[in-house]
Amino acid sequence: MQSMPQTSPTKWHLAHTTWFFEEFVLKKFASSYTPIDERFSYIFNSYYNLVGKQLPSPQRGLITRPTLTEVREYRRHVDEALFELLDSDVPAGNDELFNTIEIGLHHEQQHQELLLTDIKHLLWCNPLKPAYNESAREPGRAHCPMRWHAVNAGLYEIGGTGTSFCYDNELPRHRVYVHECEIADRLVTNEEFCSFIDDGGYNRSELWLDEGWRMVQEHAWDSPMYWERQDNSWSTFTLHGQQPMNPHEPVVHISLFEADAYARWSGCRLPTESEWEVACQSLPIEGNFMESGSMHPVETNRSTCMKQMFGDVWEWTGSQYRPYPGYQVPKGAIGEYNGKFMSNRFVLRGGSCATPKHHIRTTYRNFWNPLARWQFSGVRLAREGNS
Amino acid sequence: MQSMPQTSPTKWHLAHTTWFFEEFVLKKFASSYTPIDERFSYIFNSYYNLVGKQLPSPQRGLITRPTLTEVREYRRHVDEALFELLDSDVPAGNDELFNTIEIGLHHEQQHQELLLTDIKHLLWCNPLKPAYNESAREPGRAHCPMRWHAVNAGLYEIGGTGTSFCYDNELPRHRVYVHECEIADRLVTNEEFCSFIDDGGYNRSELWLDEGWRMVQEHAWDSPMYWERQDNSWSTFTLHGQQPMNPHEPVVHISLFEADAYARWSGCRLPTESEWEVACQSLPIEGNFMESGSMHPVETNRSTCMKQMFGDVWEWTGSQYRPYPGYQVPKGAIGEYNGKFMSNRFVLRGGSCATPKHHIRTTYRNFWNPLARWQFSGVRLAREGNS
Amino acid sequence: MQSMPQTSPTKWHLAHTTWFFEEFVLKKFASSYTPIDERFSYIFNSYYNLVGKQLPSPQRGLITRPTLTEVREYRRHVDEALFELLDSDVPAGNDELFNTIEIGLHHEQQHQELLLTDIKHLLWCNPLKPAYNESAREPGRAHCPMRWHAVNAGLYEIGGTGTSFCYDNELPRHRVYVHECEIADRLVTNEEFCSFIDDGGYNRSELWLDEGWRMVQEHAWDSPMYWERQDNSWSTFTLHGQQPMNPHEPVVHISLFEADAYARWSGCRLPTESEWEVACQSLPIEGNFMESGSMHPVETNRSTCMKQMFGDVWEWTGSQYRPYPGYQVPKGAIGEYNGKFMSNRFVLRGGSCATPKHHIRTTYRNFWNPLARWQFSGVRLAREGNS
Amino acid sequence: MQSMPQTSPTKWHLAHTTWFFEEFVLKKFASSYTPIDERFSYIFNSYYNLVGKQLPSPQRGLITRPTLTEVREYRRHVDEALFELLDSDVPAGNDELFNTIEIGLHHEQQHQELLLTDIKHLLWCNPLKPAYNESAREPGRAHCPMRWHAVNAGLYEIGGTGTSFCYDNELPRHRVYVHECEIADRLVTNEEFCSFIDDGGYNRSELWLDEGWRMVQEHAWDSPMYWERQDNSWSTFTLHGQQPMNPHEPVVHISLFEADAYARWSGCRLPTESEWEVACQSLPIEGNFMESGSMHPVETNRSTCMKQMFGDVWEWTGSQYRPYPGYQVPKGAIGEYNGKFMSNRFVLRGGSCATPKHHIRTTYRNFWNPLARWQFSGVRLAREGNS
Repeated sequence: MQSMPQTSPTKWHLAHTTWFFEEFVLKKFASSYTPIDERFSYIFNSYYNLVGKQLPSPQRGLITRPTLTEVREYRRHVDEALFELLDSDVPAGNDELFNTIEIGLHHEQQHQELLLTDIKHLLWCNPLKPAYNESAREPGRAHCPMRWHAVNAGLYEIGGTGTSFCYDNELPRHRVYVHECEIADRLVTNEEFCSFIDDGGYNRSELWLDEGWRMVQEHAWDSPMYWERQDNSWSTFTLHGQQPMNPHEPVVHISLFEADAYARWSGCRLPTESEWEVACQSLPIEGNFMESGSMHPVETNRSTCMKQMFGDVWEWTGSQYRPYPGYQVPKGAIGEYNGKFMSNRFVLRGGSCATPKHHIRTTYRNFWNPLARWQFSGVRLAREGNS
Repeated sequence: MQSMPQTSPTKWHLAHTTWFFEEFVLKKFASSYTPIDERFSYIFNSYYNLVGKQLPSPQRGLITRPTLTEVREYRRHVDEALFELLDSDVPAGNDELFNTIEIGLHHEQQHQELLLTDIKHLLWCNPLKPAYNESAREPGRAHCPMRWHAVNAGLYEIGGTGTSFCYDNELPRHRVYVHECEIADRLVTNEEFCSFIDDGGYNRSELWLDEGWRMVQEHAWDSPMYWERQDNSWSTFTLHGQQPMNPHEPVVHISLFEADAYARWSGCRLPTESEWEVACQSLPIEGNFMESGSMHPVETNRSTCMKQMFGDVWEWTGSQYRPYPGYQVPKGAIGEYNGKFMSNRFVLRGGSCATPKHHIRTTYRNFWNPLARWQFSGVRLAREGNS
Repeated sequence: MQSMPQTSPTKWHLAHTTWFFEEFVLKKFASSYTPIDERFSYIFNSYYNLVGKQLPSPQRGLITRPTLTEVREYRRHVDEALFELLDSDVPAGNDELFNTIEIGLHHEQQHQELLLTDIKHLLWCNPLKPAYNESAREPGRAHCPMRWHAVNAGLYEIGGTGTSFCYDNELPRHRVYVHECEIADRLVTNEEFCSFIDDGGYNRSELWLDEGWRMVQEHAWDSPMYWERQDNSWSTFTLHGQQPMNPHEPVVHISLFEADAYARWSGCRLPTESEWEVACQSLPIEGNFMESGSMHPVETNRSTCMKQMFGDVWEWTGSQYRPYPGYQVPKGAIGEYNGKFMSNRFVLRGGSCATPKHHIRTTYRNFWNPLARWQFSGVRLAREGNS
Repeated sequence: MQSMPQTSPTKWHLAHTTWFFEEFVLKKFASSYTPIDERFSYIFNSYYNLVGKQLPSPQRGLITRPTLTEVREYRRHVDEALFELLDSDVPAGNDELFNTIEIGLHHEQQHQELLLTDIKHLLWCNPLKPAYNESAREPGRAHCPMRWHAVNAGLYEIGGTGTSFCYDNELPRHRVYVHECEIADRLVTNEEFCSFIDDGGYNRSELWLDEGWRMVQEHAWDSPMYWERQDNSWSTFTLHGQQPMNPHEPVVHISLFEADAYARWSGCRLPTESEWEVACQSLPIEGNFMESGSMHPVETNRSTCMKQMFGDVWEWTGSQYRPYPGYQVPKGAIGEYNGKFMSNRFVLRGGSCATPKHHIRTTYRNFWNPLARWQFSGVRLAREGNS
């Protein structure tokens, strides 16, 4: 089932990630491949115009057939053909083939995350509020004060180095001048965000971007998505069901507008994506990822200089998503992947608790519409240097 | 799944009809009854405001839990409690109890029909166009010319007689003056409707009610719902899948506006509901109902004076749905059943190929928004007397 | 200016009524007539599809040119051509010509009323709430209790007699069986309607038709249009500006849904149009019309048996607007006048304080969408006989 | 009158610019000032939430009163009070007062431009297509080939210098690293844009940003706004009325999406705002501004190195509108001016044929929603260095 136009049914995610391999790998490189059903090319295409017409995304929930069993058969069918292809003589030295498969694997990782965020939204729409994972969570008590990490002004290089896989939108690696600034060493917590709410944050137009203020009024936003207040205390819907709010966990499920308003309220601002990347270039990729099984961001009391840069929540930056200088769109339909969304999106960095660990990188650029809230999105503060 | 706001998922129909018995019978008459889940009272209420708030109908598709298995358990639980109640001492002579159960049974029959029309719509939304019933249909060749049946002017009585069950909106039986007119002895066929299309019927504003003309333009209507033209021949989607159109079958899945425009084009008009009822007061309830298994209207070559008055398709009348003189709304929530829809609905008569045979009566008043097309709705012509 | 899609600018009303004479009289009967501007045929056509395409009605407010001066010149030009035609030899005995001119005059009277209701709406949209007529109103103190007037059951004739002008939708005169009932001898007053409000009328779903209840919730209706509550007392916007509410004046600017809910709340119902017409067949056409200059309904203390049947407010009936038995649409574009609106409209009877006196008749059938509130529409009660 | 929510009536522009002086200057600095009407503070406020509630902008067209005469009286009243204030002792050395007046003057210049673009849109909505300026235009024949101007890689400074007036969003002046690139020496012409159209530009999804492609499909865009094709040749609506298209004039009235798609089609891209500013830092402010009276962009055959950088059309850049590093929102309501629109806007540079000459600067940052087309907006190409 599909709970809103932006989400997709679980069955569709399963089929679409397989469709990617069928369409871009098998149809191109496996000369003897026979599709299980030609019509899947239409119904499981997401938005690749160059591949042909697509089922409009709000109608993905209507595909009662093929059934889940048939989709699993489809996945098996394509997997087998892929293994066969890889065992054949063809691929030796075929860079395009291997590159496409690599993209397909990363693409599937992305959908592993979406699958969880979409299920969460669907279950929340059900007035019975069922849990995805019935096992209880043990909320932690750890907490640490926020400290500032200085970034010196200067010319830096950001973007993919070409030594390992990255998406086209992380290229080319290029120079950028970064101004002196400071970046918080941890994420903003629920407790801190509550202070914003208690201070009338959602009622003060001067804290908001104009479009954000309109959202607040049209949709009566008064707290992050999934929050619910009862008898003066907050609870929140998680993949473990409705839970009391843990004050020290990172705030999550906020739009860019809420992240931005919170930052303004606290006398700070959001980091740009350059600042963010520069601040973590030397850090190891460690954090609370999908593999932890927490399915929710967690509090931190680590002693490292920068905390929660990876995992937990995607961090909204103050940078709109635009091409890097010299960016080239890859040829063919695969090139529709990243370039065409470069308007009205803001960049998010660092991955979340629903991101597979091996999917994330320092240079990774995620991007969403600034009003999106159903992803695991949160906020880290920045401010001018010497402020 | 739910394919549009006006339809409901199969699982919801199953649960809602059971909810009716729980809410109006068990909670009232079975003192020891314990609901399986108190929250079902909310999610399976359709539109009874007096019972409490309801899940908005467009969100019925979001209830992934309870599962189908749990809904079946809910049905079993309620059925058992009902049998227990009927076996107890309480009911003897309790007219209100028996009346409510009787309404509940008729209510369930209505949903048996909706269940089929909603499934048909859902399967049609799937670009793969799967069939509900895979077995082939043998299209008939029978055909007979249309003849006119005269109705004499005079005072008549219409409405429920009180000797057997009827809904409140069929009461009270009352006098009505009917003017001299003639009514067609059979339904309009696909072939006849094609002549209307070929004559530019969908492009000629003068044939349409103003609201109908707006629908034609906004939704680019150019044929009945479920029709598709390919290489100059029509096919139509049925519960047996996509099928070539049978010219002699009754045209079906048309709105009031199309029925009305067709009638005007042919120099006739729609019968009023009084005329329709007067014309069939002495006829037996026979026809192509759900029990035939055809799941589609069929052609006729019967020799009876009036053909297809019952079953096949609901017949749009030219009467807007309003209360009969002296109509009384039943007390309590059960009274929300029929009275509150008495604006912007037209009356349809006679039942369809998806209606259970024992559900229909001569006096039965069905009613839909004039733009509805996903029911099995068709048209029978009438004209002034001596015309 | 145009304050909503349903209203028209004053300048447009002035031009459109003249367009009617140009299009249906001069272009047809005055062979030497030369239009002042061929394009007026497009921009001043309201909804006559057979005459050609029209400017969409919500865009009437965009016609800054021609200017008001030019429109007045257009009116003078057409008037002169009409007088010339009437002075010529042609018309003698030309029934079609005279009939069309007669319709054109009645058409212009209708727009005289709309011109006032549209101006009222426009001025009300202005937060400065300017008055159309600055002179003060002297609110009356008269008041009389409501009495019931009995209508006997029987066969009656209603509709135009053909002895004087009427619209096509009032024809043919025909028999109708009316059931015994009683009709209130005066209109419902503001004071009475306030009791409905104070009793929670706008919050009780069981009093409302389903569509009406949706309007109440979507638009947060809590009182008639133009009403405003301040410090526990009501005032209302009139063509004389904002005024304290006079408790004994008829309630006005209510939708069919509000009229119907009020009637249900008071244990009564709306009269059908047959009942209404039968009840006033012998009454003279007297009342508070446009000519009185009041521009608002007024209280009554007349001693006549039936009061306020004509003038003051259009009275919602419980009858949806449908053709009379044997109704014939006039040939040609003029036939688009009344027939095509015969769905989702309710009949209103009796004229209002903005209706020219010579425009109204006992058999006159006005019709509006049941949610319309900006006309001078009110309510008179009826109930079953012997109730 | 108001032709769409984004535009305003002429009368409103006249009153709103005066309101700015009343609200921010007189009410603050002129202790004895008496407003002509307290309610103007509400109806002529555009979007300053901190000043109080505003009339929703789509309703500006409804203010029939005050009349134009009264608005002129309002302007005179405020002007006199301003002169009186400036003649008094107060202002000497009052920087805040003088700064606010200066902003008010620039604010009024902006509305002088909007006044023309809004009138153009309104007249175009009228099917009679009247001209604002009846005098004929003499289309020029000049034409020159496009050449590329190189920008060297390096650290540059951009933004206001503080030596003369600029808006807050042009501050602070700051360093930026610019990559090697080339910028076209003139604007894209109608003839060139026609080649894009003829090459199927509006039908090829791969040329468009995703949001742009959606606009193309939803609104059936197939050419710039105001263009009309008849018998295979294009004409365009101008403030001089409908005119044949001049192939050598700059293309105008295109959205960011069209500018971007055109650039992609031609193998180039849009310049960033940094590149644009760096490329013209040494140029004099010369061009086709409002003062020329042309009211439309004109062709060029100047021999200067960079042509049409100022005037003619606002040039879409590839930069989304975001704050400069270290940007500070001014205190108070005046600070609502620029900062709150920093999402989903793209920067435009250089002014247009409707911009007052003294309003524009090299550092000026205009910003619009990427789908806006009714401003005088066009496109200049850029490409990577050595390409």
